[in-house]
Amino acid sequence: MSNLELPPLDAVLADLAEYVAIPSDSRNADPATMRRAADWIAGQLDFAAGRVEQTAGHPVVRGEWLGAPGAPTVLVYGHYDVQPTGQESEWLSPPFRLTVDHGQDGDIARGRGVSDDKGPVFLVVAMLRAAIAQRGGLPLNVKFLIEGEEEIGSPHLPEYVRQHHRELACDLVISADGAQWRPDEPSISVASKGLVAFTVTVDGARDDLHSGRYGGTVANPVHVLATILASLHRSNGSVAVAGFYDGATPPSAQRRAELDAVPFDDDLFAAQLGVPETYGEAGYSTLQRLWERPTMEVNGVTAGGRYTVIPHIARAFVSCRLVGDQDPQLVLEAVDRHIARQPTPGVRVTVEQDGGAVPAYRIDPAHPAIAAATEALSAVYPEQEVLHAVIAGTLPATTLFERVLGAKTLFFSFSTADEKLHAPNEFLRLRRVHEGMRAWDALLIKMADGPHRLQPVTQPETHPETQELAQAKQ
Amino acid sequence: MSNLELPPLDAVLADLAEYVAIPSDSRNADPATMRRAADWIAGQLDFAAGRVEQTAGHPVVRGEWLGAPGAPTVLVYGHYDVQPTGQESEWLSPPFRLTVDHGQDGDIARGRGVSDDKGPVFLVVAMLRAAIAQRGGLPLNVKFLIEGEEEIGSPHLPEYVRQHHRELACDLVISADGAQWRPDEPSISVASKGLVAFTVTVDGARDDLHSGRYGGTVANPVHVLATILASLHRSNGSVAVAGFYDGATPPSAQRRAELDAVPFDDDLFAAQLGVPETYGEAGYSTLQRLWERPTMEVNGVTAGGRYTVIPHIARAFVSCRLVGDQDPQLVLEAVDRHIARQPTPGVRVTVEQDGGAVPAYRIDPAHPAIAAATEALSAVYPEQEVLHAVIAGTLPATTLFERVLGAKTLFFSFSTADEKLHAPNEFLRLRRVHEGMRAWDALLIKMADGPHRLQPVTQPETHPETQELAQAKQ
Repeated sequence: MSNLELPPLDAVLADLAEYVAIPSDSRNADPATMRRAADWIAGQLDFAAGRVEQTAGHPVVRGEWLGAPGAPTVLVYGHYDVQPTGQESEWLSPPFRLTVDHGQDGDIARGRGVSDDKGPVFLVVAMLRAAIAQRGGLPLNVKFLIEGEEEIGSPHLPEYVRQHHRELACDLVISADGAQWRPDEPSISVASKGLVAFTVTVDGARDDLHSGRYGGTVANPVHVLATILASLHRSNGSVAVAGFYDGATPPSAQRRAELDAVPFDDDLFAAQLGVPETYGEAGYSTLQRLWERPTMEVNGVTAGGRYTVIPHIARAFVSCRLVGDQDPQLVLEAVDRHIARQPTPGVRVTVEQDGGAVPAYRIDPAHPAIAAATEALSAVYPEQEVLHAVIAGTLPATTLFERVLGAKTLFFSFSTADEKLHAPNEFLRLRRVHEGMRAWDALLIKMADGPHRLQPVTQPETHPETQELAQAKQ
Repeated sequence: MSNLELPPLDAVLADLAEYVAIPSDSRNADPATMRRAADWIAGQLDFAAGRVEQTAGHPVVRGEWLGAPGAPTVLVYGHYDVQPTGQESEWLSPPFRLTVDHGQDGDIARGRGVSDDKGPVFLVVAMLRAAIAQRGGLPLNVKFLIEGEEEIGSPHLPEYVRQHHRELACDLVISADGAQWRPDEPSISVASKGLVAFTVTVDGARDDLHSGRYGGTVANPVHVLATILASLHRSNGSVAVAGFYDGATPPSAQRRAELDAVPFDDDLFAAQLGVPETYGEAGYSTLQRLWERPTMEVNGVTAGGRYTVIPHIARAFVSCRLVGDQDPQLVLEAVDRHIARQPTPGVRVTVEQDGGAVPAYRIDPAHPAIAAATEALSAVYPEQEVLHAVIAGTLPATTLFERVLGAKTLFFSFSTADEKLHAPNEFLRLRRVHEGMRAWDALLIKMADGPHRLQPVTQPETHPETQELAQAKQ
């Protein structure tokens, strides 16, 4: 289908090595370093008037190739910032030197950011430049938004997108960030989970009390907190908060069958994590729970210590991952009501929302982008079924783009989830470079015209609530 | 009754000021400072061959006046070390300068250690020296053991006492450490609570897991820990561990009535601590629970934090205060069995003993020492009933003396529990100095002869288990 002559891998890696060499760790790098990374990728967007624009934080890289009037417009999203290296001594090669090596299933390039997200962004840019050079243009209009704060929660992205929503207008956002869930099964993510977090605080006496001299006289905040936390789940693993599941429609029989058909070895999964067995809500397989069911997890607890006191305060940090139409605010209210019903004699209990609230995101599998992406992946991986996957994490940017630009986001990354993202020895499979280029080329052609042509979206009014997305944890 | 002419308060305070000026904080002071404090109080024991003896830690002060052959022998126990000062800025006067001031209910002397335990020990020494000077001797034999590590858990006392058990042989230990429970109600402590502590560890995955990317796939150790901790108590406040109460005989109707007669304002008590109400095991008053009932308190919990993970490990530190004949080892075994019965799918749970185990201590109210002490207190506080109190904390030394020396311990301190022991602005009520001297004088006379004469004890063989007492938390 594609007659594009792809840039040789060596040339791509030589360029990518320059990009990886800039240590654009958004948590720790100085502004000049961040700017150098932004300048580098903006420079690669010479065919699209690539430029660096200021935000209240690290700058964003923008660009647009608008040479296809009347054709649809896509916004390519990605980021140029990277995670901290972690312990450098754990790296097999210097984290900011792109190093080609042999991996378990083929050659890899190792380096911080190579898979998340410099490689996946750069392969799109390199492919587009080659396509313009060879064909004189692109089949549709392409805009770019490459941010520098993804790894720190995109704190300034909402404000920037709101302020520039007309310039960023598009029919679809395509994210070069994200990841194929496994190296050997092509997949398209059709949903990501929402998030709402809260802190439960149980207050007792003014100070910690000697557990002997006051034992038996006052309620122990830890006992009350334990009772509250134990009440959140049933013994079958389901969440016991009345109303929690409102809007979380169980997966259809067809979706269950689809997931049951995916090879998933529970014992191997448990062994890799070091747990004796998998566990979760009764009535669902592990993959069904991970992709289709909401969860409530206590992320941390803190009280007293290893000394004989009755702690004066006990705290738990709890977060929920949401699916479908669960409303984060209604979930919080349900939690509030549930906890208010627990017996808590002798203490004061408060529940406070912690950070922003993000609903689940999904794109209709019938959306033309999904059909186009499925065909594009099938062209590159002809032997395999394309799986509709779910990103079990939370991606506030999808909700941001939907609310402010009115556009859905398609995840189309050629990173893979097992490539040690955020950990030492991050790597990218070399075969993904050309696979990704061919897939993106096919994708854009299919979206430009024919049965899967993108339809225009209605740009909504901007809405102040988008600001809160900035605070959402990921 | 007593014709003893007591040393003038000014003279006592002048001496005590020297003693308080030596900052013998056993946790932080250098050996030379500790030695200076030991030397000072040993010097006051000139009438008893006072001397300093080495241990593996801070030295002990020994002495004996054995001029009453055929009469009983008592061992006076106390300590010359003090607590750290805490925030010096919170002190109204320098912590190591004895400062006389007006308190809420009369004059006080302020300074670190003045109430715990330098004042209460020194008043005995000063009284005995006056008695020998005025009467030519004492009515019974008196030995001294004044240690320097009480505030850090007496780590080297068991070994020292075991090695010197013949020299320390006595018919009764009288502790100048401890405290009257209230300033206005004379009391004798007839029991102290035992202690056994354990750590519950719930292990999940090898590392903390992203709560999105792994949510719903594995058990959360915090959920399991919460379920375990919530299972330890019933909703009526009683401990739900089968066998926990074995050996903890409920107080008799008479003892209940005795405690019900003690003025105790629950609302005031709660207000002072800053809790909305008192709380504890159903069926008992607050004072009954504090003095007569065992407790199990979670002293601390730790897991994860305020970030979206499934923590890989969750821990709780738990301790029990024991009464009556509860056996610490059997309590631990009961806890083990109880926790083993809880459902804990997907995790590993371990329960480990934490530190030493100390049974409850008690002295029979019919013991002649109690009668003697009651009469001695009545002589000083003629208007008031003497209450049989309980030290709700744990005093490993009592068990040590009982096991190694075969001797019971009588608490006869003229400190008061509200004198900010261990806190900034520790103080001693000045009236307690002469009250204490008169009471000790009366006590020793009554113990020497007459209806309450002390009976000889049988010195037991030393027993290796006494070593473990050194590790017991207090």
